[in-house]
Amino acid sequence: MSLRHAVLGLLDEHPMSGYDLLKRFEQAMSNVWAATQSQLYGELGKLETAGLIRVHAEGPRGRKEYELTDAGREELRHWLVEVEPNRVTRNESLLRVYFLGAVGPERAREYLANLGETGRRRSERLTELDAAIDWGDDDPSLYGRLVLEWGKRFSAMQQEWAEWAVKQVE
Amino acid sequence: MSLRHAVLGLLDEHPMSGYDLLKRFEQAMSNVWAATQSQLYGELGKLETAGLIRVHAEGPRGRKEYELTDAGREELRHWLVEVEPNRVTRNESLLRVYFLGAVGPERAREYLANLGETGRRRSERLTELDAAIDWGDDDPSLYGRLVLEWGKRFSAMQQEWAEWAVKQVE
Repeated sequence: MSLRHAVLGLLDEHPMSGYDLLKRFEQAMSNVWAATQSQLYGELGKLETAGLIRVHAEGPRGRKEYELTDAGREELRHWLVEVEPNRVTRNESLLRVYFLGAVGPERAREYLANLGETGRRRSERLTELDAAIDWGDDDPSLYGRLVLEWGKRFSAMQQEWAEWAVKQVE
Repeated sequence: MSLRHAVLGLLDEHPMSGYDLLKRFEQAMSNVWAATQSQLYGELGKLETAGLIRVHAEGPRGRKEYELTDAGREELRHWLVEVEPNRVTRNESLLRVYFLGAVGPERAREYLANLGETGRRRSERLTELDAAIDWGDDDPSLYGRLVLEWGKRFSAMQQEWAEWAVKQVE
């Protein structure tokens, strides 16, 4: 259900088209909530039907810009402060680690080294993204920066842990 | 679908009852894959119907012990080495951080401090768990230890990040 709230949160900043939203999901948000184009456009349809967003302007070639309705703004604030976050832990990559004893040490090391490499690549990508974004001074940018910093620390942690883990198997 | 593989992986070590499995989910596995009692018992039924596990022994009061079938063992190994892990990133707690600008700095700091406190408590709980488990020298224990170490590093990272983040909002 949180794709819904991600879309509401982005539209709370200013009206955007589906294309603008997709760009945001591919950039700073890629860190916290993955969404494909079809998921995003599907959600926009549902939000409009539910009266949480409406078309603000229609541009050339039928490109629609959406804005929040009052009901949408209320739903966003409710989610932000009143609903308990879903804290269920599920990490499929790590679940596999738990059972690597079933495939022997060589394959296990390969798998762990791979996780470390994923961490390294992600860390690099986020550092580049950080450098490429003009953060400015306003509030929405502040929180985007906090989230990106989380991603950088998470990736670095994963890389360091995996390098340590490979050595434990050796 | 990974609850299925978690159950297969645990039964690959030795036959266990639903109760034994539940204990494992509550202990070292709590870190990587959450499962309730009803999810677990439901999955055992499905795995038995699918021929991936079978009843190994039936104890007093109808307590069943399950073991892997050859098909179950094959499915486990296939999942471990041949299927690409689902790397989709979804973190609802962090998604909220992204939009905290909508609720004002006081509430935002409160939310971030809360995340830090969750990290601290989790880190404490995992350290205690680590001390309480007799790791022994065999392979399955090695990988459980790697996973627990991941959880400790993750929680510490979350705590440090949140304490840093609160200061950014001040």
